[in-house]
Amino acid sequence: MKLSNRVQKMQFSPIRKLAPYADAAKKNGMKVYHLNIGQPDIETPDTFFQGMNNFKESVLKYTNSQGMEELINSFIAYYKQWNIEFEKDEIMITNGGSEAIMFALMAICDVGDEVVIPEPFYTNYNGFSDVAGVNVISFTTKAEDGFHLPSKEEILSKITDKTRAILVSNPGNPTGVVYTEEEIRMLADIVKEKDLYLIADEVYREFVYDNLKYTSALYMKDVLDRIILIDSISKRYSACGARIGLVASKNKDLMKQILKFGQTRLCVPTIEQLAATNLINTPKEYFQKVKEEYEGRRDILFENLSSIPGVICEKPTGAFYVVAKLPIKNAENFAKWLLTDFSYDNKTVMVAPAQGFYANEGLGIDEIRISYCLNKDSLKDAMNLLKIAIEEYKKIEK
Amino acid sequence: MKLSNRVQKMQFSPIRKLAPYADAAKKNGMKVYHLNIGQPDIETPDTFFQGMNNFKESVLKYTNSQGMEELINSFIAYYKQWNIEFEKDEIMITNGGSEAIMFALMAICDVGDEVVIPEPFYTNYNGFSDVAGVNVISFTTKAEDGFHLPSKEEILSKITDKTRAILVSNPGNPTGVVYTEEEIRMLADIVKEKDLYLIADEVYREFVYDNLKYTSALYMKDVLDRIILIDSISKRYSACGARIGLVASKNKDLMKQILKFGQTRLCVPTIEQLAATNLINTPKEYFQKVKEEYEGRRDILFENLSSIPGVICEKPTGAFYVVAKLPIKNAENFAKWLLTDFSYDNKTVMVAPAQGFYANEGLGIDEIRISYCLNKDSLKDAMNLLKIAIEEYKKIEK
Repeated sequence: MKLSNRVQKMQFSPIRKLAPYADAAKKNGMKVYHLNIGQPDIETPDTFFQGMNNFKESVLKYTNSQGMEELINSFIAYYKQWNIEFEKDEIMITNGGSEAIMFALMAICDVGDEVVIPEPFYTNYNGFSDVAGVNVISFTTKAEDGFHLPSKEEILSKITDKTRAILVSNPGNPTGVVYTEEEIRMLADIVKEKDLYLIADEVYREFVYDNLKYTSALYMKDVLDRIILIDSISKRYSACGARIGLVASKNKDLMKQILKFGQTRLCVPTIEQLAATNLINTPKEYFQKVKEEYEGRRDILFENLSSIPGVICEKPTGAFYVVAKLPIKNAENFAKWLLTDFSYDNKTVMVAPAQGFYANEGLGIDEIRISYCLNKDSLKDAMNLLKIAIEEYKKIEK
Repeated sequence: MKLSNRVQKMQFSPIRKLAPYADAAKKNGMKVYHLNIGQPDIETPDTFFQGMNNFKESVLKYTNSQGMEELINSFIAYYKQWNIEFEKDEIMITNGGSEAIMFALMAICDVGDEVVIPEPFYTNYNGFSDVAGVNVISFTTKAEDGFHLPSKEEILSKITDKTRAILVSNPGNPTGVVYTEEEIRMLADIVKEKDLYLIADEVYREFVYDNLKYTSALYMKDVLDRIILIDSISKRYSACGARIGLVASKNKDLMKQILKFGQTRLCVPTIEQLAATNLINTPKEYFQKVKEEYEGRRDILFENLSSIPGVICEKPTGAFYVVAKLPIKNAENFAKWLLTDFSYDNKTVMVAPAQGFYANEGLGIDEIRISYCLNKDSLKDAMNLLKIAIEEYKKIEK
C-alpha cells in the first residue's frame, strides 16, 4: 500500500522518539529525570479551572471558527499590557501554537517556497514545513555567541526569490536566547527590504531573565503588516494540555484568508476557550513567582552543567532550555544509552539530542537540549547523574 | 504583501459565510431558525461532564501524541459493540473528524494526487483537499436515486493513475443516504482492483432510520489494510465543541506514519480526552432516544418540505440532513435574501446553499441543504416560513 512521499520524508519527533526507552526504564523501577521535554511542572493557575466552570450549557456546541469573542477580547487585554494593540479581526484562536504556525506557513507559502530560520530551532518547525511543503533554509547560530543572530549579510545570503518569510522564536527554543532590540530591528529591515513576512513565535515572552528588556517583533511599527505573531498559553500559564494558541497580525487581509483554514477545521474546543478566557484574571504575582523560579533553576542548572568537565554551554537568558555541547561523539546514542544501560542509585536522566534541532546536516551531533522544567533539587541531582554518566560513557564510546 | 495561491484558491465556508447576515437579522430582533448547520440541539450526555471531573492534576500537561491510552481503550470497547476489532496501535485521537481527514489525506496523497468522492459531499472535504494539495474528482449522485451510488463503471471512469483513494461519508452528509452492503462491497472491490484506499467517514453511524442495516467499511474483511476510518464524538454524543475525533486503520504501517503528523501538533486537549473517555459509560437508551427523536424530525421535515409546491426531495434514511431542489434559480441569492429581506411574523430561516457541496461546476445551484437539528415544532414552523418565502421569492427573482 502506497504512502505519500510527504509523510515518509518527515522525521519522528526527536524529542519523543526515545519515550519507549524511558517507559521501559520506569517499568523496571528506575527514576527518570525528564530534561527532554518542555512540560512545565509549575501549577496551572486556578483561574484556568475556574474559567472551565463558566460553561453552563447543556449542549457542548461548536464555537465560531475565529474563536470565542470573549477569549479574543481577553487576549487583546493581555497584549495591551505589553503595549501591543490588536483589534478583534486581527486574532484567530488556534489549537496551540502548533496550528498557528501551520496556518501562517500555509497562508503565505506555496509548495516549494522557502522559510529562513536560525538554527538550532524548535524541531517541530521541520514537521510544520514538511506538512506545508515548505523548505526550511537555516543559518547557524552558535553557542559561543550565546546563539545571537549573525550579521545581516549572512542572513541575506540565505534569501532567494523563493523565500517568503523569516521565522524566529524569541525567547529561543532550544537556545534560550533573547534577541536585542537591534537584532529585531535588523530582522524588520530585512523583511522590509526583501518583501517578506516575519513569523514571530513569542510563546516564551514572559520568560526573560537578568532584567533584560524584551523586544516583541510587534514593536517594529513600520513593518506591522509583515509581522505574523504565533502565541500560546501553554508555557505562559503552564497549560500545555489546553492546546490554546493564536495567530495574529495587523495585516487584516492575511487574517481574513487564514480564517479559511479555521473554517475547514470548524473550531477550537469550547470549554478550553472559556477556561483560557479567564486567565486574564491571573494575579500578576503569578508571573513574578514563576519567573523567579525559572531564573533560579537556570542558575543552578548552568552552574552544575558548565562545571562538568568537557561540557560547553553559555548561560541562557530566556525560555527554559539550554543547548550544551558534550565531550562525546554522538548525543543520540548517548541519550538512548542513558535510558537503556546507565543507572546510578537506580536513577537516570532523559535528554533531547540536539541534532534534530538543526536543518544543516552534521550539526548538533554532540549536543543535547536540556529543559529546566524540574525543581531545583531534582536539577542538581540530574546534573550529578549526567556528570557521572558522561564520565562512564566516554570510556565505552566507540 | 503576497499570499499563497493555496489559500487564495480556497473557498470560504459556504455554510458559514452567511453568518454575518444572520447575526444582523438577530440584532434587529428577528427569530432565525438555523437549518444551515449540523449543530445538534440534543443534550450532551452527563457522562461527558462527569468525565471532565476525572481531571485531578494541578498541572494541565500534554498527553502523548497518539492520544490517552484510556481514551483509545474506550473507543476499542465502543467499536466492539459494532463488531469492529481495533488494537491500540491502530487508533490515533485527533482534533475532531476534521483533523482525521486531513491526516489521512496527507499520509496517502502527495500534492497533485487525486481523491474520488461522490457529490454532493461535505463541503469541508474541499478545504481539507486544498490544504493537502489534493485534487477532488467527483462523480454525481442524484436526488431521484436517493443519492445512492452510480454503477461501478461510472465510478471506475473517474479513477486515474493519480487516484489514491475513494472518500465516502456513510451515512451521507449532506445527502442523508445510507449505503447498502452491496454498495460498500462494490467500493471495496474497486479499491482492491485499483490499489487504492477507502477513506470511510462514519461519524453518523448511529443515525440510521427505518430499521435499515448499517454496513461499516470495516465489515469488508478482505480489504482491511485499505480502509481508513474517520470518526468523531461530535454528532454521536452531541459534543461538537469537544473536538475529539480519531483516525483508525488496521494498516499498522500507515498508522505509524500518521503518528508523525500527530507528533508535529503535539497532542489533543487533555481534559476533553478524559471527558470523552467516560462517554463509553453513556446508557444505551441515550442512543435509542436520540435516534427516535431524529427519525421523528426527519418524518415531519420531509412531510412538510416535500409538500411545498415545486420542491423536489427524497426521504433521507440517515444522518440529519436533506438536500432539496427548490423552484427558484439561485439558492445562494435566496438564502441571503431570507436573512436580509424576508420576514414573516418577525421570523425567518437560514439554509445552506448546496452549490458548495458539489465539485462539478453548475451543479446544486437551485438546491439547499437543510439540517434537522431543531425540535419538531420549530421544524414545522420553519417549513411554513420556507413555503411562504419561496412563494414570495418566485415573484421577485430575476
